[in-house]
Parts: sequence; C-alpha cells; structure tokens
Amino acid sequence: MRWDEVADLQCSVARSLAILGDRWTMMLIREAFLGTRRFDEMQVLSGASPQVVATRLSRLVEAGILRKIAYQQRPTRYEYRLTEMGRELHPVMVALMTWGDKWLDDGQGPPNPLRHATCGAITRPKMICDQCGEPVSVNDLVSEPSERMARQRHEMLAAAKSSS
Amino acid sequence: MRWDEVADLQCSVARSLAILGDRWTMMLIREAFLGTRRFDEMQVLSGASPQVVATRLSRLVEAGILRKIAYQQRPTRYEYRLTEMGRELHPVMVALMTWGDKWLDDGQGPPNPLRHATCGAITRPKMICDQCGEPVSVNDLVSEPSERMARQRHEMLAAAKSSS
Repeated sequence: MRWDEVADLQCSVARSLAILGDRWTMMLIREAFLGTRRFDEMQVLSGASPQVVATRLSRLVEAGILRKIAYQQRPTRYEYRLTEMGRELHPVMVALMTWGDKWLDDGQGPPNPLRHATCGAITRPKMICDQCGEPVSVNDLVSEPSERMARQRHEMLAAAKSSS
Repeated sequence: MRWDEVADLQCSVARSLAILGDRWTMMLIREAFLGTRRFDEMQVLSGASPQVVATRLSRLVEAGILRKIAYQQRPTRYEYRLTEMGRELHPVMVALMTWGDKWLDDGQGPPNPLRHATCGAITRPKMICDQCGEPVSVNDLVSEPSERMARQRHEMLAAAKSSS
C-alpha cells in the first residue's frame, strides 16, 4: 500500500495518521500548540529542514489544520495558526505528553507541566466516558467495527492469501 | 536536526514522537490495539512492506512497547503483544480516532465505534482534569515550561540567529 492509500482505510485512526503520521508533521503541530507561528521559528524549534517545514506546513494548510495569515506587507510575511480542526487535536497532544512524561522520563520530571486554569492545579488529564462520566481504559472500551470496516479488513487478508 | 536527536528535546511530546512519529509505526500500534498479533497479518492490514514492518516491530520491541513471544516451536513462530507501556498508549489512539471520526468522516459515520463496557453506551471519550474532575480544553490548560525546556528552546533560537 502506498502511504496516501492509508486515507482510504475504514478506520479513523488510519485516516488521521494519513494526515498526521509523518515524522515532522506532528512536531510542527506541537510547535503550533506551544504558540510558535512563524516559519523561521517553526523550523528552528522543530529541527526539521526548511524544505521539510515548507511542504509539511502547506499540507497542513491544505488539510484545514493550520491557516496561513499575512501579518506584514512589503514584503508580505505569513504566520501559521491552528484552525478549529487543528485546535481539536489538543487531546492527542495531551495524551502523547502524558505518556511521555511517564514512560520517557529522564529523571528530571515533566519538561512541560500543564496547569488547569479552572482549578489551579498541575494536572495529568485522563479520559472519561462522555455518556456515564466514568473513567475509560483499554480494558473497558470495546471496539465494534462497522460492517464496511470488517469487510475491508477481511478482503485485505483474503487478497493477500490468494496472491501468496 | 537528525530525527534521532528529537529524543533529546526537553519535551515529552517530542520524545514520544521520536519513538512513535513515523508513518508506519503508529499503524502497527493501531493493529496491535485491534488485536492483530502476527507478523503476516500486521503486514497485510497495515499496508506496509515486509521490510518496513520488520524494522518497525523490532524498534517497538526495543523501546518496550511490544513484546515478542514464541507461540509455536519447529519452526519457531512469534507474535507481538502490547506491553503495559504499549497499552498505555490507548488514550493516544482514542484521541486520534475521536478526532478522525469528527473531522475525516466520509458521510458514513464512525468506522469503528467504541462501546463502554461499564455503562453499555457507545462513547466518545473526553478528557478531564485528574485533580478537579472538570473537563479540560485547549483554552484552560496552560503549559508551564520547566527552566530546562525554556533554556533549550532559547538556545536553539539564539544559535540559529547567530549562524544566519
């Protein structure tokens, strides 16, 4: 499968990864959440090459995750800001950070603690069910693949079997 | 910056991405959460080439996210299962899925709805503060970079300025 075909899978994780699942793309989205808006700073702080930053930012604008805004005329200069679609990636970032804080700690504690403005405490957000309000975990969330997802996966396995 | 240097950044998102932020790696973790354990099925269902699957699975074992278990002798055959460290990536997967369900819907609804075993309802999990129990959002979580994170970012910007 080519990478761009991942977007056609019947799976929202795969579809999300088709846009986000690139080494430097998520680093640029991380920068956007940290408040970085300008190309040069995005480039330096993400560590990607200018060419990589340029292609990834264009794709993110095309996908609707960032918008490009002129902040200066003569010469025109642009900055990049998260759209609503982009801002809603916040739980993905928080989940990645929380996991890294726990499992990739270098002994110095969280590099970037999050404070909850509502209560004033340093927080480690967790997930609850939006229906009953109880915590959810890998043990009590059961996926119920749609018929089209199940069929697509069945066909992929069948095709591989018949070609081997 | 080379990709492997991303792991040295003072940021848990970056450190997580240094392991996970590769096109096919997250697809393989997705497969593991969907219950796929064997190399061949991982390969077919992720869509990656056998070589890519082999290198990525090895790295995930090395990182402690998957473990490799012999399930058959003569010839020895292995399967891959999530470790505790791997299972704790569940919120990342759920957040990616929830985002994709909303923003990348093809008009047919969620490909893979999640049912919460505790209450029996189809759920779209959301994040709350582990201290006060109230919802968290991008608007009320304030990052408080550690001194070492702030210093690293400052030095990266200063180094870029002095070399240009």
